[in-house]
Amino acid sequence: MKCVMAIIRIDKMNETKRALRDAGITSMTATGKVFGRGKGLWDAKVIEGAKNDTPEALELLGKEPRLRPQRVIQIVVPSNKVETCVETIIEANQTPGPGDGKIFVLPMGEAISVRTGESGDAVLDI
Amino acid sequence: MKCVMAIIRIDKMNETKRALRDAGITSMTATGKVFGRGKGLWDAKVIEGAKNDTPEALELLGKEPRLRPQRVIQIVVPSNKVETCVETIIEANQTPGPGDGKIFVLPMGEAISVRTGESGDAVLDI
Amino acid sequence: MKCVMAIIRIDKMNETKRALRDAGITSMTATGKVFGRGKGLWDAKVIEGAKNDTPEALELLGKEPRLRPQRVIQIVVPSNKVETCVETIIEANQTPGPGDGKIFVLPMGEAISVRTGESGDAVLDI
Repeated sequence: MKCVMAIIRIDKMNETKRALRDAGITSMTATGKVFGRGKGLWDAKVIEGAKNDTPEALELLGKEPRLRPQRVIQIVVPSNKVETCVETIIEANQTPGPGDGKIFVLPMGEAISVRTGESGDAVLDI
Repeated sequence: MKCVMAIIRIDKMNETKRALRDAGITSMTATGKVFGRGKGLWDAKVIEGAKNDTPEALELLGKEPRLRPQRVIQIVVPSNKVETCVETIIEANQTPGPGDGKIFVLPMGEAISVRTGESGDAVLDI
Repeated sequence: MKCVMAIIRIDKMNETKRALRDAGITSMTATGKVFGRGKGLWDAKVIEGAKNDTPEALELLGKEPRLRPQRVIQIVVPSNKVETCVETIIEANQTPGPGDGKIFVLPMGEAISVRTGESGDAVLDI
């Protein structure tokens, strides 16, 4: 059992959800906005917004070190589904530009259903 | 040392906090709203809200694939408190309906107090 | 590879970002507000706000068990940078009072770049 955590563009959320569902992965948790930065990469929309004096974009660019809004999705999957899950997220999130995000795979000890008290891969809804 | 992460109903937050405190577990971190889905399960309140044309509920139901608002709590506990912690969360969150949530237990490498620089179970406030 | 997760004061965010950048750690993800509690500790500003009848502070203090707003930052670093990362966060966040926060170090299985599909320390932007 693993936790796949992906940090993606905000506007890729719906596409990612659909792609995961189509790959048979229906259970997930998504955060609201988070703020992140990679190695100086910037979301093209923020840079464009700043050029057009959009206040929110200017504010983001005006602070050093700069963070950009992103979303985090967390999916707990049986170990034999990690590869499918990672490849699905990559396919749904690749764009021609930088800032497509990262995927992290964390070890997961156990999953327990609150309703039944059961644990193991069977409670993962996948 | 383990990290117990529970994804629960929004309206079960206060009850869960109280139950954990009564079980001697005082230290925790809770997110704002997150959005999650299990295997097609829906929070009864959202479905009821949609029946009554509540805009927020309709919006949630109108999007495919659907996510429902939830909360995440994270509690780092000494390994010998994991069972108490999990059982307390289950008791506080079981309802007659589906959508009660899930509990995940993640391995935790180390905990460090910013104030003292100390590490280990002693800094966990539990 | 490890995930360093720090729960810090809201008003220490910018200082922490700068300190990490100066230490050569540029890649990170920060949440919006979370709500946490340690062993009965309270942010001095909330207590002061409550004394001055600030509504938000009063509301926070009025609920039992009490949580205080905090921020979480998550940084995935190569294993040989964990110590630098932890020490940098400690230095940027120590104050004379209680409530400076905690740092957790979690095992991390893998990191994958969405753009290139590559994995390993090289994708960590550090």
